Amino acid sequence: MKFSFLTLFPNLISSYFTDSILKRALDSKIIDIEIIDFRDFSTRAHKKVDDFQASGGAGLVICAEVLENTLNYISTKDSHIIYLTPVAKRFNQFDAKRLASNYKHIIFICGRYAGIDERVIECFVDEVFSIGDYILTGGELASLVLCDCISRQIPNVLGNSKSLEGESFESNLLEAPVFTKIIDNSKKVSNLSIPSEYLKGNHSRIRVFKNHLSLKKTKYFRPDILKQRQTNAK
Amino acid sequence: MKFSFLTLFPNLISSYFTDSILKRALDSKIIDIEIIDFRDFSTRAHKKVDDFQASGGAGLVICAEVLENTLNYISTKDSHIIYLTPVAKRFNQFDAKRLASNYKHIIFICGRYAGIDERVIECFVDEVFSIGDYILTGGELASLVLCDCISRQIPNVLGNSKSLEGESFESNLLEAPVFTKIIDNSKKVSNLSIPSEYLKGNHSRIRVFKNHLSLKKTKYFRPDILKQRQTNAK
Repeated sequence: MKFSFLTLFPNLISSYFTDSILKRALDSKIIDIEIIDFRDFSTRAHKKVDDFQASGGAGLVICAEVLENTLNYISTKDSHIIYLTPVAKRFNQFDAKRLASNYKHIIFICGRYAGIDERVIECFVDEVFSIGDYILTGGELASLVLCDCISRQIPNVLGNSKSLEGESFESNLLEAPVFTKIIDNSKKVSNLSIPSEYLKGNHSRIRVFKNHLSLKKTKYFRPDILKQRQTNAK
Repeated sequence: MKFSFLTLFPNLISSYFTDSILKRALDSKIIDIEIIDFRDFSTRAHKKVDDFQASGGAGLVICAEVLENTLNYISTKDSHIIYLTPVAKRFNQFDAKRLASNYKHIIFICGRYAGIDERVIECFVDEVFSIGDYILTGGELASLVLCDCISRQIPNVLGNSKSLEGESFESNLLEAPVFTKIIDNSKKVSNLSIPSEYLKGNHSRIRVFKNHLSLKKTKYFRPDILKQRQTNAK
């Protein structure tokens, strides 16, 4: 899978691939990344990329033509172009799986300032996603979030594919709490005990018990997910 | 505002502050950051920080005592400790505003692997947040998302405080589309026109029209927000 990032701040993207799991995936050529400073495609004076809003109002808008120039240069018929903006449906784990298995090249457009000229979305973008109900200074973190989520769904990116089992959202439930066995008794945390069922070694009973805890956690934090799950089961 | 990040991958955090708005906020001392590699607080052999799950199962868990050691070292009575996990309520724009105005020191615990020992959450954590319904390889991106959202709510971080006006979620609506006025007519995007109301210069009419478009966008992408808004208005 190749990921291309169109950004005005290449450093904010590249450094995320210098360590940990995505570095390993990159080193072993399971993923490939391309970071494009789209300012290089500006044909305006001083490589300007933004302009006043047509309607008036605070905040500058990224001009359409600089993004069109960039996309013409890097996209092919196999590219899937994604724009990150709060004005979109929320990205979720099912999208991550779908994108990981359906595409070979994903292009992220990282907006800045008051956003990008809407015509770019209409002309070129295949999907728009929001990562959540909050506003970021730019699309860089949001595109890294998608890249990270999608990458870990690609075979061999995580060392152990079993790590994906039982994760939150896999069965429309939040994950049960985890504990380590050995603990330093001088610590404050050692005053709290592990649920005894966790320690009895009966794996089918542990599974049932963990499922029970998952249901409780989901009910507490995310009754909406639980409701959705019950609707699906009908 | 001071942000402390407890992580095993300091590079993934530090580089986000080398450019753009958060760098400026850091340079002008409006925000301060501290990045702690919590491996330094391990007292186990080879500075080990993780261990098998008490219940058995795939994935290692970050040990409680290493986080307790770290928190004892860096937290004060004024610290607000946040853990990022999908097993939590979803972070939103109202949380960003609240955290920006209520706290002077926020500590983010960035989990990895199968998560952290649950007892750390029970003993030390003030709030748990999820940034969305998807799974990341670690808490680093999620904590940067919170830091970015919170920072831009702090006075003087954005150059122009008017930039915050009319943003998505400010009035429980998604933002209206934006356009630039001048466009290169040789481009594909120039085949699409700007809504004529945007160009007439009557700012009160533009405001009404943009509000109309915001409603349409919200209805299309996020009927749940619109429903919530109508309930609140009753």
